[in-house]
Amino acid sequence: MDLNADLGEGFGRWSLGDDEALLDIVTSANVACGFHAGDPATMHRICRAAVSRDVAIGAQVGYRDLAGFGRRRIEYDLDELRDDILYQIGALEAFCRVAGGKVSYVKPHGALYNTAAVDEGQASAVVAAVRAYDETLPVLCQPGSVLARLAGAAGLTVVGEGFADRGYRADGTLVPRSAPGALIQDPEAVAARAVRMAVEGVVDTADGDVIPCPVESICLHGDTPGAVRLAGSVRAGLLGAELAVAPFS
Amino acid sequence: MDLNADLGEGFGRWSLGDDEALLDIVTSANVACGFHAGDPATMHRICRAAVSRDVAIGAQVGYRDLAGFGRRRIEYDLDELRDDILYQIGALEAFCRVAGGKVSYVKPHGALYNTAAVDEGQASAVVAAVRAYDETLPVLCQPGSVLARLAGAAGLTVVGEGFADRGYRADGTLVPRSAPGALIQDPEAVAARAVRMAVEGVVDTADGDVIPCPVESICLHGDTPGAVRLAGSVRAGLLGAELAVAPFS
Amino acid sequence: MDLNADLGEGFGRWSLGDDEALLDIVTSANVACGFHAGDPATMHRICRAAVSRDVAIGAQVGYRDLAGFGRRRIEYDLDELRDDILYQIGALEAFCRVAGGKVSYVKPHGALYNTAAVDEGQASAVVAAVRAYDETLPVLCQPGSVLARLAGAAGLTVVGEGFADRGYRADGTLVPRSAPGALIQDPEAVAARAVRMAVEGVVDTADGDVIPCPVESICLHGDTPGAVRLAGSVRAGLLGAELAVAPFS
Amino acid sequence: MDLNADLGEGFGRWSLGDDEALLDIVTSANVACGFHAGDPATMHRICRAAVSRDVAIGAQVGYRDLAGFGRRRIEYDLDELRDDILYQIGALEAFCRVAGGKVSYVKPHGALYNTAAVDEGQASAVVAAVRAYDETLPVLCQPGSVLARLAGAAGLTVVGEGFADRGYRADGTLVPRSAPGALIQDPEAVAARAVRMAVEGVVDTADGDVIPCPVESICLHGDTPGAVRLAGSVRAGLLGAELAVAPFS
Repeated sequence: MDLNADLGEGFGRWSLGDDEALLDIVTSANVACGFHAGDPATMHRICRAAVSRDVAIGAQVGYRDLAGFGRRRIEYDLDELRDDILYQIGALEAFCRVAGGKVSYVKPHGALYNTAAVDEGQASAVVAAVRAYDETLPVLCQPGSVLARLAGAAGLTVVGEGFADRGYRADGTLVPRSAPGALIQDPEAVAARAVRMAVEGVVDTADGDVIPCPVESICLHGDTPGAVRLAGSVRAGLLGAELAVAPFS
Repeated sequence: MDLNADLGEGFGRWSLGDDEALLDIVTSANVACGFHAGDPATMHRICRAAVSRDVAIGAQVGYRDLAGFGRRRIEYDLDELRDDILYQIGALEAFCRVAGGKVSYVKPHGALYNTAAVDEGQASAVVAAVRAYDETLPVLCQPGSVLARLAGAAGLTVVGEGFADRGYRADGTLVPRSAPGALIQDPEAVAARAVRMAVEGVVDTADGDVIPCPVESICLHGDTPGAVRLAGSVRAGLLGAELAVAPFS
Repeated sequence: MDLNADLGEGFGRWSLGDDEALLDIVTSANVACGFHAGDPATMHRICRAAVSRDVAIGAQVGYRDLAGFGRRRIEYDLDELRDDILYQIGALEAFCRVAGGKVSYVKPHGALYNTAAVDEGQASAVVAAVRAYDETLPVLCQPGSVLARLAGAAGLTVVGEGFADRGYRADGTLVPRSAPGALIQDPEAVAARAVRMAVEGVVDTADGDVIPCPVESICLHGDTPGAVRLAGSVRAGLLGAELAVAPFS
Repeated sequence: MDLNADLGEGFGRWSLGDDEALLDIVTSANVACGFHAGDPATMHRICRAAVSRDVAIGAQVGYRDLAGFGRRRIEYDLDELRDDILYQIGALEAFCRVAGGKVSYVKPHGALYNTAAVDEGQASAVVAAVRAYDETLPVLCQPGSVLARLAGAAGLTVVGEGFADRGYRADGTLVPRSAPGALIQDPEAVAARAVRMAVEGVVDTADGDVIPCPVESICLHGDTPGAVRLAGSVRAGLLGAELAVAPFS
């Protein structure tokens, strides 16, 4: 099982999350590429640290929206969206190259992630960018999403990710954050869900059902001290169950 | 002789210069990379057009300063400047790759060009970026500048450029724009100077002397209709003198 | 009748449209405030020029989106949208104050204009900003729009604007740009429509009907030479019909 | 004695310092205006909180440089610098107005503060902006600086500020951060220096001399938990010495 998390999401004077701590937990680092967060010096530092730890580097591409942290949906012209994504992948590649690594996958961020999960236009812009850049580059996204479907249809490698600390609905989508059961906060419960995803490929829904959850990566968060501890407990849980924790790529 | 010019210096809704006309005149395109000018969609379009015409593509890297068009000197932390340059080279490389080409050289823009010509710190940041990215990548700059000296000392290929439409002083520097003799506007005179640079490797100074001008490229401008015509007359002059006009790289 | 147009929509090195020519035609200048276009030096210059010509100054407020020129719909948090609008009004007010004038009205730009015309949330954010800043400040918008309705309900002064060069549908909305009859380009026809709006308060629809068009201002464009000439012909047409051309505010 | 500190220096998703804690300590809030830090929603919130506590609001104006947090010197065209400052003052004024307050003073930030302290050009741009906006608006700066001199010569009110936690040299300038004695970290020592500035108008230099320190405000910092505690001890020290702690304006 792979463990991924967002890294390098500060900007200039502003930091966010504990990148150092997460780099010792994850096996894949979704590195912010400067459009929603992430400045070049931070990208450089994170790439070096990731390569030195054998952590895979992915391009965490987002809308051009520093003020909104990429969390506001923007109705892009689709060619411009494709080009904004290409630009970000290329920028990150420079730092991977300098650090002796490479961009190993692409994961959309924030509102682009959410929109590409349901909108064919924006999903196709993500697919077009990845295909044009390197058709062997995997896309990390939610199983069953529009992006997963279009990327697969275009011949791209699709890597599904799960959320061990989020409640699922019967259709495989997440319980909205505003609804009961959206967040699971007990570290042991979260770790147990991660193990079950890894071993059985299923997850319990908020309604008590069990549904398939075919994921190769589990998404961890790290923007609060509690989140880092939770991430560590997932890693410990997987290792304790004698599961391999390694990059999917 | 190579002919280079700045291209893709619009941003979003705003255009600048006649990229299409220049692409039929130059042999090397200095493509703006998004920090002082240049949006991803424009970069994509220019890279495709350049590759289709066998025009070499260079990264025209600048300060992060859209509002000032990269023309205001900024006292950067030097590691941050190196990383801002790496970021821009990588971003442009993505579009070169998609278009079937590659970044063939690096040329600093505006205040970075001027500062790196005289300041060891900023010149060394440019050198550090190019060396880290690809030590075979040439740097296009003014002969005799600090950047030319440091790049050469670091083992980089240095390509000198001349300005056929600008007056020179006896020490090889340009006559400041505010002084008499700064600009040469007669197309035949400009073309004749270009030919002399190419054939004899010299240029007449504003004071009537003749000095060495060891250049492999001539810088053309294209942000006014008159500038494009002047650029065309330089190309025609070189071809009329039966000189090869081709990328240096 | 008032004539309004967008002004100051360049940014730094980039210019757009012929501000000087338009300032001699319009009676109200919608000045870009820096978020979709417009830099402080341009705002300062336009405000001085407008005050010296007795042209009223309005805050042309837009999304924070220089790369998209404010033309991409953004799903803002509504409080943040209100605050982005307040910020822009205040910034423009500084230059009005320095020039001896004041912000006389607010007009949303681009995608904010279009969204606030149909979306209660974003329309209410515009209304909230104007009310908080100065409840006597008029809002310039399309008659019948959601923004017009909510602004009126909140006690704000609503000024309706018409488009003499655009086709209308029977419901008072504009013919989409992609459909036949969207644009009217004959200067005499456009001027005649402007006069009819002013004198009779009606406009011919694309289908040949006549509908009410209760406007106090006509919106002119100026981003092409042809547009400036068209704008001049509207002004000439109104003056030729012995109609007063003056700011609504 | 007045106590000032920088507030609202986050941007969007990123926060910096403990604004709430500082608002209970200071009497004057230097509010970031969006160019080096500070988004509109934060400005709105800080202005409301300041007005409700009778804390005076100042425009903390900086270079347009979010990536560098306004700490990189930029060689601005001076008219453009004046206009960037006017823009920021106006933007902040909108939120003061909505909150029932007003902009009560101007204080340059970071590299603009340092540059205007020694450079006549940039100091004169600050003075020009303040005079144009409101010639009764005080400028908060270091006594003896070029800005203090030019602002005074232009008829502006100059308010001198001292740094109780920084070492002074015999000429009244600060010991550079890299030199011994630059920082005083003992809370009691810092509070005692603040009291001495307030009561006697003098400060001990790093060399053991005593020099005049004619200040009406003491600058506090708040970007670390330790800094907030130190700020609190200065306030407590002044109150303990039965000195009035109130805005200068």
